[in-house]
Amino acid sequence: MEIVIIGGDAAGMSAASKIKRNRPEIKVTVLEKTEDVSYSACGMPYNIADQDREIEDLVVREASAFREKQGINLLTGHKATHIDPSSKNVSGVLENGKSFEFSYDKLVVATGGSPVVPELPGFDLPGVKVLKSLDDGRKLKAYIKEKKVRKAVIIGMGYIGLEMCEALYERSVSVSMVKPNPMLLPWMAEELSSEVGKELALHNVTLHTGYGVEKITSVDDRIKVICKGLTLETDMAIVAMGIKPNSELAVKAGLETSIQKAISVDKFLKTSDENIYAAGDCADAYHVVTGNKTWIPLALRANRSGWAVADNICGNPSEIPGIAGTAVFKVFDMDVARTGLTEKEAEKARFEPVSVTIKSRSRAHAHPGSSTIWVHMTGDKKTGRLIGVQMVGREGVAHRINAAAVALHSQMTVQQFSETDLAYAPPFGPVWDPLLTASNQLLKKM
Amino acid sequence: MEIVIIGGDAAGMSAASKIKRNRPEIKVTVLEKTEDVSYSACGMPYNIADQDREIEDLVVREASAFREKQGINLLTGHKATHIDPSSKNVSGVLENGKSFEFSYDKLVVATGGSPVVPELPGFDLPGVKVLKSLDDGRKLKAYIKEKKVRKAVIIGMGYIGLEMCEALYERSVSVSMVKPNPMLLPWMAEELSSEVGKELALHNVTLHTGYGVEKITSVDDRIKVICKGLTLETDMAIVAMGIKPNSELAVKAGLETSIQKAISVDKFLKTSDENIYAAGDCADAYHVVTGNKTWIPLALRANRSGWAVADNICGNPSEIPGIAGTAVFKVFDMDVARTGLTEKEAEKARFEPVSVTIKSRSRAHAHPGSSTIWVHMTGDKKTGRLIGVQMVGREGVAHRINAAAVALHSQMTVQQFSETDLAYAPPFGPVWDPLLTASNQLLKKM
Repeated sequence: MEIVIIGGDAAGMSAASKIKRNRPEIKVTVLEKTEDVSYSACGMPYNIADQDREIEDLVVREASAFREKQGINLLTGHKATHIDPSSKNVSGVLENGKSFEFSYDKLVVATGGSPVVPELPGFDLPGVKVLKSLDDGRKLKAYIKEKKVRKAVIIGMGYIGLEMCEALYERSVSVSMVKPNPMLLPWMAEELSSEVGKELALHNVTLHTGYGVEKITSVDDRIKVICKGLTLETDMAIVAMGIKPNSELAVKAGLETSIQKAISVDKFLKTSDENIYAAGDCADAYHVVTGNKTWIPLALRANRSGWAVADNICGNPSEIPGIAGTAVFKVFDMDVARTGLTEKEAEKARFEPVSVTIKSRSRAHAHPGSSTIWVHMTGDKKTGRLIGVQMVGREGVAHRINAAAVALHSQMTVQQFSETDLAYAPPFGPVWDPLLTASNQLLKKM
Repeated sequence: MEIVIIGGDAAGMSAASKIKRNRPEIKVTVLEKTEDVSYSACGMPYNIADQDREIEDLVVREASAFREKQGINLLTGHKATHIDPSSKNVSGVLENGKSFEFSYDKLVVATGGSPVVPELPGFDLPGVKVLKSLDDGRKLKAYIKEKKVRKAVIIGMGYIGLEMCEALYERSVSVSMVKPNPMLLPWMAEELSSEVGKELALHNVTLHTGYGVEKITSVDDRIKVICKGLTLETDMAIVAMGIKPNSELAVKAGLETSIQKAISVDKFLKTSDENIYAAGDCADAYHVVTGNKTWIPLALRANRSGWAVADNICGNPSEIPGIAGTAVFKVFDMDVARTGLTEKEAEKARFEPVSVTIKSRSRAHAHPGSSTIWVHMTGDKKTGRLIGVQMVGREGVAHRINAAAVALHSQMTVQQFSETDLAYAPPFGPVWDPLLTASNQLLKKM
């Protein structure tokens, strides 16, 4: 059996490695357009924060290890440009312009995602950066050093942009952020979002919400980010406006897509073509709360779906239920986490959302070092189900959210969740965990 | 309706307060034998650690607030000595020897637990302390100060004893621990228990496992803890050999008891007598994994069962499913957590336990400041269910355990748990959360 995998990042290499672990005799070819495989993309902001570390520290496994130790036919610099599902063929071009062609029994599309960059003047200037591939990180880091960047404008206020604030702060780069939406975190309860805003202000990050960038100009190395009614002068701009699925190849091949043109897959990660799987940021997923399709490109899903594809190809059917939309990120000393649906998403999915926002503490009464934890919890009035949780705080947020995530997978009601036996000791929280306090309050409204 | 509550600690005061919130017209009398109500007992080691803090810092709510603001007839210094279920009467004695008597419509027994102190010579010496009531803490703290204690022996190696190690270390008191069992934490997987042992050694705590204390002697303020083959000289001894339920009153009144003579209650917290409820450390509980009775006296259960009793008394039936045995404590910089069953407990409950122990990291690949997290996970071979998790590490343990606790409440299989969407960001863990890595490994054995 011959397997071809397009894309050598989290999903693609997870699939390739697991196929070889499962059944070493299967021939696995990975076509990766860049020279980098298997690196921690999410670690880039933290690496950029430290000028003494090499970006290559983020490489988890060298290409040579995949080739020599695992026997994967890993071909970097191979950009696939065409899939022919009828002849089961993938073709493409090398960097030197030569073409290549591979036939497959099963194909895995793991083409990932790309940063959203608007087609507006100046977004292609040398001082305007994105952060997705390791090479993006390499270039961004080099630019800060070479140009002695002291000022940066981040366009967008998503996870990456917010994580980059901390990285740039560590590098003594002063940061402004700009975006059209008037809300900092529009998916988050206002009270929680405003705490994140305060944390940014505390670190001298200037927020310009409500401004859409119209163009970017430059004179020498000096950059102007120009909005209607606002011009920001800076040394560097980072475009962090979110990502989109790399599904063009799949679309051209006639594969079905869904939300935001992500490649549509079933719970076995199979696309609309019998012999093609898709995994990672290019593919959609089922949401365990709604049961509907969703597209939330995150690392765990990419790795997990890569493994599942491998098992399915190797004849061990592996069905994965989907995602709860669990995410966490750090904004300076503030941890921000969510799982499940926002009210808006809940309404869209025809739930009847009821929410509470509570303030609790990160440590017990009278325990030193305690700080505030905010919890926003949403339930469905019709069924009593827990459908979403958001949290913000200086400690005890990142892993606490997982209790709620598991509850979402189990389709627990708020009542059932409120009855769970969560851990307590004074250094780690109040007797009634913030999640329990939120459930108790929410129950009163339901 | 007249309600009498025996015991003014977590369960008793939770019940009293909630009855008054639910139905202010109900008369609630609380009989508390000591002068202290509503304090954070679990916070005592951390308070003792700081000589500049008053033990009264741990009082969450003053007795006067319960009386004046909530209208609870709170009577301290009232030791109940007799319950007569047929005449629905409670009698007792005051500190001055005078007797008192109350009749009730519904009675709540919330008598808590007491430290286990063996009836051996010298355990009643002035330099031999226990730590359960606020007054115990007050006395222990005063003793350290007055006698300038520099050396302590802790008899027992449970949560309280281990937390006291850190407290005493902060006070520059050198600590030895002694107990008959050859294992430091006999309920914990050996590899994890040994990490806790290393953490104690790092802080100069000497462990004498395998030694049962035969007697304690003293000359002036100098104390000798005498075992067969070992004599420990010290300034102070702390007896931390666990607690037992205060169920004597209930037993005398003919109420049924179960495990370790804890008062037997149903899921509505009702005892074998129609008009008597029991809540807190004196009462048993159902274990959500086994469905059987268990006795694990911890703060959350005490508070929660107090509330449930209140609701049941007020005519809002409140059934609580039980406990998962979730617990966390801190041993210096090491966090130790568990939920569910150990292998031994699982075998006893007729499961077919299979376990793995894995090592993972507290932060992502290449993220600075990462440390090891150990996870020991147990599943049931027959049903595939997740039945227990233990964790040890320097960060990311205390709240992570809650994801597993929720899974136990939902009776998830290890397979289902392995498919959950847990949070990931580089500062908080690897892409595959340690709990997911453990589940993936465990699945291979099941």
